Amino acid sequence: MTERADVVVVGAGLSGLCAARKLRAQGASVAVIEARERVGGRTRTEQIGRGTFDVGGQWIGPGQERVRALANELGIQTFPTYVKGKKVLEVEGKVSTYKRSIRSMSVPNLIQMQGALSYLKRVRKRISPSGPMTAEGAEALDGETLETWRARFVKSDKINAVMDAAIRTIFGAEARDLSALYFLMYLNAGGGMLSLSEARGGAQQDRFVPGAQSLSLALARELGDAVALGLPVRKLVQGSDGVDAVSDRQTIGGRYAIVSVPPVLAGRIEYEPAVSVGRDQLTQRFAMGAAVKVLLTYERAFWRDAGFSGEVVSSDGPLSVVYDNTSHDGQQPALIGFVVGSQARQWSAQPLADRQRRVTSALKRYFGEEAGSFQEYRELDWGAEPWSRGCPVGGLPPGVLTHSFAHLRKPEGRIHWAGTESATEWIGYMEGAIQSGERAADEVLRRL
Amino acid sequence: MTERADVVVVGAGLSGLCAARKLRAQGASVAVIEARERVGGRTRTEQIGRGTFDVGGQWIGPGQERVRALANELGIQTFPTYVKGKKVLEVEGKVSTYKRSIRSMSVPNLIQMQGALSYLKRVRKRISPSGPMTAEGAEALDGETLETWRARFVKSDKINAVMDAAIRTIFGAEARDLSALYFLMYLNAGGGMLSLSEARGGAQQDRFVPGAQSLSLALARELGDAVALGLPVRKLVQGSDGVDAVSDRQTIGGRYAIVSVPPVLAGRIEYEPAVSVGRDQLTQRFAMGAAVKVLLTYERAFWRDAGFSGEVVSSDGPLSVVYDNTSHDGQQPALIGFVVGSQARQWSAQPLADRQRRVTSALKRYFGEEAGSFQEYRELDWGAEPWSRGCPVGGLPPGVLTHSFAHLRKPEGRIHWAGTESATEWIGYMEGAIQSGERAADEVLRRL
Repeated sequence: MTERADVVVVGAGLSGLCAARKLRAQGASVAVIEARERVGGRTRTEQIGRGTFDVGGQWIGPGQERVRALANELGIQTFPTYVKGKKVLEVEGKVSTYKRSIRSMSVPNLIQMQGALSYLKRVRKRISPSGPMTAEGAEALDGETLETWRARFVKSDKINAVMDAAIRTIFGAEARDLSALYFLMYLNAGGGMLSLSEARGGAQQDRFVPGAQSLSLALARELGDAVALGLPVRKLVQGSDGVDAVSDRQTIGGRYAIVSVPPVLAGRIEYEPAVSVGRDQLTQRFAMGAAVKVLLTYERAFWRDAGFSGEVVSSDGPLSVVYDNTSHDGQQPALIGFVVGSQARQWSAQPLADRQRRVTSALKRYFGEEAGSFQEYRELDWGAEPWSRGCPVGGLPPGVLTHSFAHLRKPEGRIHWAGTESATEWIGYMEGAIQSGERAADEVLRRL
Repeated sequence: MTERADVVVVGAGLSGLCAARKLRAQGASVAVIEARERVGGRTRTEQIGRGTFDVGGQWIGPGQERVRALANELGIQTFPTYVKGKKVLEVEGKVSTYKRSIRSMSVPNLIQMQGALSYLKRVRKRISPSGPMTAEGAEALDGETLETWRARFVKSDKINAVMDAAIRTIFGAEARDLSALYFLMYLNAGGGMLSLSEARGGAQQDRFVPGAQSLSLALARELGDAVALGLPVRKLVQGSDGVDAVSDRQTIGGRYAIVSVPPVLAGRIEYEPAVSVGRDQLTQRFAMGAAVKVLLTYERAFWRDAGFSGEVVSSDGPLSVVYDNTSHDGQQPALIGFVVGSQARQWSAQPLADRQRRVTSALKRYFGEEAGSFQEYRELDWGAEPWSRGCPVGGLPPGVLTHSFAHLRKPEGRIHWAGTESATEWIGYMEGAIQSGERAADEVLRRL
């Protein structure tokens, strides 16, 4: 590891690694410093039972061109999420099944649901992720929570409950935690509510054969010695000609720095001189969602045999959504589910036995008794990961876009900001991570 | 400084010092570790010109019994804020004067203003600061911003503008930044909107002759060697029989620890083992308000001669409120004002000359040309203070009390939480700091 480089990149998630790759491709030297003993940030792949599984981010969908191109370039194959068969919907204690996408669910509230989705689409299309405050009505939309805004056009408790399950899954947060404007901007960056919620045709459409972390692992291999692990950066010291990244064991200097960690973690780094008050006020308010990913392996995919796709949307929890997650070769049947939002904040405080009982009890409601006979139970509480502090993404409460939006991407001296929260396309996704990393690299390249 | 004590207290603001004092009075040994080179936290007293002035918290009002008793005990005198004469109200570009409290302002909106205050009082009295979520309607009140909630009973732009000036001053935040429930709980903890807003009969009634920091300075003198300065605590490591507080230069161990710093700073400490996800999620969302205190000294108190009390409430800014702040002996006339909320977040990014021009231009609107002829101009941007990160207090957006309230005061193993944000009386004030420190000390005393 060199002690100096043109650019120091803090964080070896997909964003930081893509920034480093682009910089190096343009002839700049880089040093990527990662707090964890691994690369990949919010992606993490493990061998569980007879399969290779992601305990972090895992999906890729249509419209995510950068991550698709990167995978192609690195020779990483994808395969479709299993979606054949009946889906399960659990709303307010009642379990039902349906065949097509949730947009056509046969409940009396169909018209209102369709209306709500159309209205969402109409409004979110106005909110540009690169300049949300210039949109008509932006000021008012950032003055209220998604919960109160939505209450004006969704009157049905059932529809609210279904939408809540989707919102929790997308943000790891509740409708009351989020600015209506932030929500709409986020939807727009990812093609809309259905695009973010669906498997077929949506953000959960495909998986990576070797797992999503393989992208970062391949990039890190390319970068070789330029990536240093196990070095939490505690302090960034800017001088007149460079930035020193100070970790417990080592200081690495660059002419510029790119910080590609979630805003809440960026806020926990010490800066000399201090970043602007506006930037600090922003990071104080950019809280991570809460999400626990739960994976259960089974001897056989019994739900498939019973005609289920494995997909569940539940307003009751503890799992807000469930998917079939059988390994690519079919050798290791598995289900995954997500505990998200308010339930995730308290999840790990419960004994493991209780958590397992609640999860299997839910899966039995959906797929029958056999769901209790799992082989392995693996869960990862991303809120307890010190170098993530939550998942899938940071979210903004009301008022922050109004007054602090400019500080999201604005460099502080020689320090530039990356990470999926700073993306303008597919914020919160691998695609957004790549976009933000490449954008930060471009900013620095113009200054080198 | 001993390397071990019964209790390690992190933070030598009023809260931490009062905790330490109470612990020691009961026979426990203490070590108070402070990041700054001074004690007093958000209070700070300076000699400016011919006077002694507070560039941080400075007032004490009726109902604040603990701080009153402490001052008496320490022999620290108070004197009344100067309030004789006309007050100034600036709303939407129009400057007017009035004589009595703002509740009797002679504008056509009088009835609506009175109605709003009555309604506020009725609702806030239901919200107990020790259990806000049990109140009738609490769930809904925490689902929306103060801005949208208020819009249902305040229809006048002028009244909203006046209320906004008060809200900004009380919280350093905008109505859209705050949960309606948090706002009401906070009001209730301090006796209501008028109690928090007013000088005479309210929280700005009296000042300390030697400045507010004198309380902390006296407590630190009592504690002697038990207070260590210039030692930012980076990490708290809990073992089976104690807690080690790790700073850059020194590690100090205790059987228990009390962390008495604002939640956002508590969240930036590393914990081994990690605190609960619920606690971390709470600190991620407990952002500090933004506030800049501006003090100008003058040769003479020309505003008094012209019949002004010096009090201003402005919806236009940059100063949301102004007060006469002449030194106790009358020898150094002075005005103070507060840049708060959204304007404060961007304040220090402007050149000093522009800031001075904007401040003096406002003061000239209120008090005439002579306001431009100041002697000294002193401002302190509390958002730029690394060991405060804002002022006067941390505030909560919607959704946090709903799901994370329990984590505000709940100990994490051997670590207890103090600081004015964790108070149940006069949250955000010196009184709250003392209450929270003594409460945390009591918790620990029961375990020693």
